[in-house]
Amino acid sequence: MPEDTTAEQAAPEDLWRLRRSIDNIDTALVAMLAERFRVTREVGQLKARHRLEAVDVAREEAKVARLRENAARAGLDEDFAEEFIRRVMAEVVRQHRIIAEEG
Amino acid sequence: MPEDTTAEQAAPEDLWRLRRSIDNIDTALVAMLAERFRVTREVGQLKARHRLEAVDVAREEAKVARLRENAARAGLDEDFAEEFIRRVMAEVVRQHRIIAEEG
Repeated sequence: MPEDTTAEQAAPEDLWRLRRSIDNIDTALVAMLAERFRVTREVGQLKARHRLEAVDVAREEAKVARLRENAARAGLDEDFAEEFIRRVMAEVVRQHRIIAEEG
Repeated sequence: MPEDTTAEQAAPEDLWRLRRSIDNIDTALVAMLAERFRVTREVGQLKARHRLEAVDVAREEAKVARLRENAARAGLDEDFAEEFIRRVMAEVVRQHRIIAEEG
């Protein structure tokens, strides 16, 4: 049984089933995000070694546009998808600058 | 070849390879987010039918705590993970309120 201690103990069986799906999806999302930052750390080290800029605006904008298309096809709100990827990319740039300074 | 038209055309082969990984991960993230909102829309409809509250603070806080643990295990920054899931949950609540009003 899930750890609910609230009014929703009275909720239907379906709710419990759907929440199991959400929990599984969240585990997958965390794993995917962890892997994305693992790869972008490698990119950061490569950029630092080759003294490349941490930010590539043209590539970022192309990425946003492509992600919005993917979102539309998958039935995900495009603005939500854009906000999400911009937040991720900002964190990547922050990490790349730290890597460049450390290197 | 990727669609880079910037200075990074001169970047090493490894960068291209890593960016292919990032693009694949982003496709997976979009698909997972789309699926999460598909499931939470079902939850919203269920809650509306049973006149349950859109927000369950106890469940949300338990979810945040569990996600931070998952993030730590996966090597993902815990604060980033928390900010991410809180943004997702805020969007879910917004959608659930719309569903409740429409119902």
